[in-house]
Amino acid sequence: MAGHTAETGVVTAAVLVIGDEILSGRTKDQNIAYIAERSTELGIDLREVRVVPDVEEEIVAAVNALRGRYDHVFTTGGIGPTHDDITADAIAKAFEVDIDVDPRAVALLKQRIPEGDLNQARLRMARIPAGGELIENSVSKAPGFSIGNVHVMAGVPAIMHAMFEALVPRLAKGTRIASRSIEAGLKEGDFATALGAIQRDFPDVAIGSYPSFDASKGFATTLVLRARSEPRLTAAEKAVRAMLDRVRAELRA
Amino acid sequence: MAGHTAETGVVTAAVLVIGDEILSGRTKDQNIAYIAERSTELGIDLREVRVVPDVEEEIVAAVNALRGRYDHVFTTGGIGPTHDDITADAIAKAFEVDIDVDPRAVALLKQRIPEGDLNQARLRMARIPAGGELIENSVSKAPGFSIGNVHVMAGVPAIMHAMFEALVPRLAKGTRIASRSIEAGLKEGDFATALGAIQRDFPDVAIGSYPSFDASKGFATTLVLRARSEPRLTAAEKAVRAMLDRVRAELRA
Repeated sequence: MAGHTAETGVVTAAVLVIGDEILSGRTKDQNIAYIAERSTELGIDLREVRVVPDVEEEIVAAVNALRGRYDHVFTTGGIGPTHDDITADAIAKAFEVDIDVDPRAVALLKQRIPEGDLNQARLRMARIPAGGELIENSVSKAPGFSIGNVHVMAGVPAIMHAMFEALVPRLAKGTRIASRSIEAGLKEGDFATALGAIQRDFPDVAIGSYPSFDASKGFATTLVLRARSEPRLTAAEKAVRAMLDRVRAELRA
Repeated sequence: MAGHTAETGVVTAAVLVIGDEILSGRTKDQNIAYIAERSTELGIDLREVRVVPDVEEEIVAAVNALRGRYDHVFTTGGIGPTHDDITADAIAKAFEVDIDVDPRAVALLKQRIPEGDLNQARLRMARIPAGGELIENSVSKAPGFSIGNVHVMAGVPAIMHAMFEALVPRLAKGTRIASRSIEAGLKEGDFATALGAIQRDFPDVAIGSYPSFDASKGFATTLVLRARSEPRLTAAEKAVRAMLDRVRAELRA
């Protein structure tokens, strides 16, 4: 697959979460975190996430914006049998292709649903845009699909996970980013300037500083270093640890 | 405030989460769900969410896209003292205004940080774009800010919550959307066509169907009806409950 990025070994992705229930706060999304973690493990850089409502023009606009910018677009939600499940039709519109009941998808539904129960509503779950490749659903059979670089999956987390894992073998992947975490044991303001200097020395290592707050334990700061080169990561880690030791000694003095 | 929407009583919002750590999967976002829930309670319609990395041009582009479309934009993340905290500068760039250390913000920092510890790095947390209004931070003092319709808050959940609640009194709010939840006790495919007919009869009531799956309990479906008019909501709920009773009776027959 032709990547959209010029960097060697870099494969990028975006997630598009489709669903009023996430925006209303009724449902807490669990799919972004899953795809983020798995993408990192697979050497895919997740670069953007969007959440949009069950509104066709919003889905079409987001799909077209994202598929032009990233190597992969993963969508979740809106592929069930009810009137508010409009993702498949919106994707067909975004790609300007026809959509119809797909015999391959019907065959899968029949593995689970008795012939007499396969009504018009359930057949909606077999509507696949022309040119789509099915994504297997080992949990409840109704498939997702890939079209171009867009991978359309269910919103129910257990089903989304199964679909994502079914999809993994055919995804283009890049060089995995390695990372190291360092507990700073200091407040960010104590080392921020020195850390900034190290970041300038290591432009190829992404250095993040993540404060957290716990009512019982107070503030803590974790530094995360990420890079494609292990030797550079090791060198940067050494520089950060030496700097933290130096700052701690200065604060004790 | 002039709303961006023509509908009476409708106030819209978007959330922009800024942070590599969410996209890498290292940190699970908790702020989207908090703002989604609170917005719904306040009569603010959350219409879109985006997550972008700590990259200035990405933040600028997203802020400008969202602030033109929605009444409020809530951002989280990237306002600490380290080199990767670039949100305030990116917002200034998006609004094409200057940014500098703000004496009001410095005064707040001094409530917590001893004068000798107020180094260059910590003063970064007092950089506020020209024309910004501070958002109080009762947890750790370093403030957020509002500029135009964009409200810039911390990423650490406890601090973000404190900032959001400090902001609430000055937010424009709309008519609260009321909702009713109904446990269908049926599979979606059994009632989807009949539910679609009810949705057509009640275009002013948003009817969502949310399947869930639990390995021990199997599938369940919750129907959620949302509307600004209580009488219409009551009428739609009655229609849905009658339909479900009818479908259950048919399935038993």
